[in-house]
Amino acid sequence: MPEAMVNHADLLNFAKEVMVKLGASTEDAFVVADNLVTSNLRGIDSHGVGRLKRYVEGIKSGYIIPDAKPTVLRESPVMASIDAGNGLGQPAGVFGMRKAIDKALDTGVGVVTVSGSNHYGFAGYYAMMALEHDLIGISMTNAEPLVVPTFGRDAMLGTNPIAFAAPTKTMRPWVMDLATSVVPSGKLEVYDRLGKKIPDGWATDETGASTNDPARVLSSLFDGRGEGGIFPLGGEGEIHGGHKGYGLATMVEILCGVMSGANFGRDVVYRKDGRPNHPRVGHFFLALDPSYFIDIDTFKSRMDELITRLRSSKKASGQNRVFVHGEKEFEEQDRRLKQGIPLDAKTVEKLTQFSIEFQVPLRFVSS
Amino acid sequence: MPEAMVNHADLLNFAKEVMVKLGASTEDAFVVADNLVTSNLRGIDSHGVGRLKRYVEGIKSGYIIPDAKPTVLRESPVMASIDAGNGLGQPAGVFGMRKAIDKALDTGVGVVTVSGSNHYGFAGYYAMMALEHDLIGISMTNAEPLVVPTFGRDAMLGTNPIAFAAPTKTMRPWVMDLATSVVPSGKLEVYDRLGKKIPDGWATDETGASTNDPARVLSSLFDGRGEGGIFPLGGEGEIHGGHKGYGLATMVEILCGVMSGANFGRDVVYRKDGRPNHPRVGHFFLALDPSYFIDIDTFKSRMDELITRLRSSKKASGQNRVFVHGEKEFEEQDRRLKQGIPLDAKTVEKLTQFSIEFQVPLRFVSS
Repeated sequence: MPEAMVNHADLLNFAKEVMVKLGASTEDAFVVADNLVTSNLRGIDSHGVGRLKRYVEGIKSGYIIPDAKPTVLRESPVMASIDAGNGLGQPAGVFGMRKAIDKALDTGVGVVTVSGSNHYGFAGYYAMMALEHDLIGISMTNAEPLVVPTFGRDAMLGTNPIAFAAPTKTMRPWVMDLATSVVPSGKLEVYDRLGKKIPDGWATDETGASTNDPARVLSSLFDGRGEGGIFPLGGEGEIHGGHKGYGLATMVEILCGVMSGANFGRDVVYRKDGRPNHPRVGHFFLALDPSYFIDIDTFKSRMDELITRLRSSKKASGQNRVFVHGEKEFEEQDRRLKQGIPLDAKTVEKLTQFSIEFQVPLRFVSS
Repeated sequence: MPEAMVNHADLLNFAKEVMVKLGASTEDAFVVADNLVTSNLRGIDSHGVGRLKRYVEGIKSGYIIPDAKPTVLRESPVMASIDAGNGLGQPAGVFGMRKAIDKALDTGVGVVTVSGSNHYGFAGYYAMMALEHDLIGISMTNAEPLVVPTFGRDAMLGTNPIAFAAPTKTMRPWVMDLATSVVPSGKLEVYDRLGKKIPDGWATDETGASTNDPARVLSSLFDGRGEGGIFPLGGEGEIHGGHKGYGLATMVEILCGVMSGANFGRDVVYRKDGRPNHPRVGHFFLALDPSYFIDIDTFKSRMDELITRLRSSKKASGQNRVFVHGEKEFEEQDRRLKQGIPLDAKTVEKLTQFSIEFQVPLRFVSS
């Protein structure tokens, strides 16, 4: 199956229909599809429709309950604690972030935890929901253990992303979305598929030493033993600050796992030994209204000013551009909205299978 | 002047008396001294009494107003925005964090920004204030520009620390306190003093290329041009995630600088050309009550469980210990409370000068 291009609206509709066939409501199916396709549009293909497979398998094997509805366990004017009922992560995430936004609009701040959830796609999606209300949005999630603590050799923590979005006046919003590991696991998979070696300092083998062999890392991680793993941001040991990434990943684990009542660390297991084991992932959402702290127009002008200064700062020799966060993704989105979304051969093959299996048509344009 | 040991209570009293002589109230002087000495006790000598010099100079040159009182600009049951009036950073920080804590005890969450402030010492001090109330504490500050954005060659952002503290049941609290750069500037100074080369990937010279010469970095940073600088956490370029540290540093700049109304980026200037220029630094504090989200005893037991698992995880070959955040510092504190605080020759010399100048006695014990 060759690589192909696909129109974003067609892809969204396809992913939505597949989720509906699997038992999700139209609204929930839309949210899952929109999260996946938005990630593709922004150029983050690691979290795009290539992940649909994961949700299809999760529903089939019983660890994702496609029609689960979130329950509010505790609530106050500024916070809520939600149980996702082992449902799809994206609708639970949108439910949680909407609550955080509503509370921030009422009181200035909203903090929401979600437990009993599943993989919620790309973290920035939820943080960016705050932007249309002129709020700052923060979104974090814990995840299956793939990251070794500093001086350790077993994966104990997720790649635990932190996303942060802030509104601006005339510039594009400032949107940060980062795994607290050196790289996300998808990057190892890309190198593995291409038969390329990974750079020093990305990941460790089962002995705890840095390795250049992505296949070795991936196989020890996913064979059930969970040995080896990705280094935390800052890399191996402490010399370049690996303990800092390890700290940030643990902070995310505390907010998303420990405090929400979700699973944390090595309890977040997708499936080993065939039992339909709910991973019970947790998320953390925070919305903050800058207008409580400073005139909102001043805030947005100051954001523009910060962005302008960073972009116009002097370049290192050999470089012609200093980016700000979100900028590359917005530009890619402009391109892909016009030209379509490129899909690799493996993804085309999988989506074609789903198209046949679920009887949902999808039109590819050869690239 | 040789190296020496000093008793922590003597050192605290000394630093306090010096600040009083310079015009700070007894309460404010205590807070500055306690922040400095607590940092020494915890083994973070880069933020210890060696920094007293900086505050003495700041007051003498007029950019720190020692008897300024913070003003509350805006306030609600969950937030406050404070102007420190160009006073000492530590009392302003304690004032801000106390407000965040009070609000969190009342409502579950408290968010406070401080503007018009100065260097507030070590960030973890404020985050840890939340612990005695069984709250989670978060503390951030922006700072003079020392960090280059990814692909840039001019220092545009501070080392902008993030501190996070969470209460536990029987274990020591989990306390993270990290600069969002590869290393703090104090580390370059230590290497420079020892005549040692710095590792690749820590800092860049004025062309934007990684350098091993700490003196070259420090002199271009501090000669008024602000060229070159420390790499953000993740290092040079994007290959090991340098853009992630750049993102985290910018996030801190947004919360502490843009939103608070403080200076941000290259406006945070301590003194160039002799004018008494107020740096107008900003801080961000957040206190969060886990008992709103989950039974507090369950939360603290789960914290213990997370810490136990991380500590007992399998070690990389050649390593015999996996640490959790705060652990090394609590152990060092135990040691230094008993044995005293070691001071390097340069610090002993400076403190001796202050002892004579301000007529405040300090007893050293030769080490």
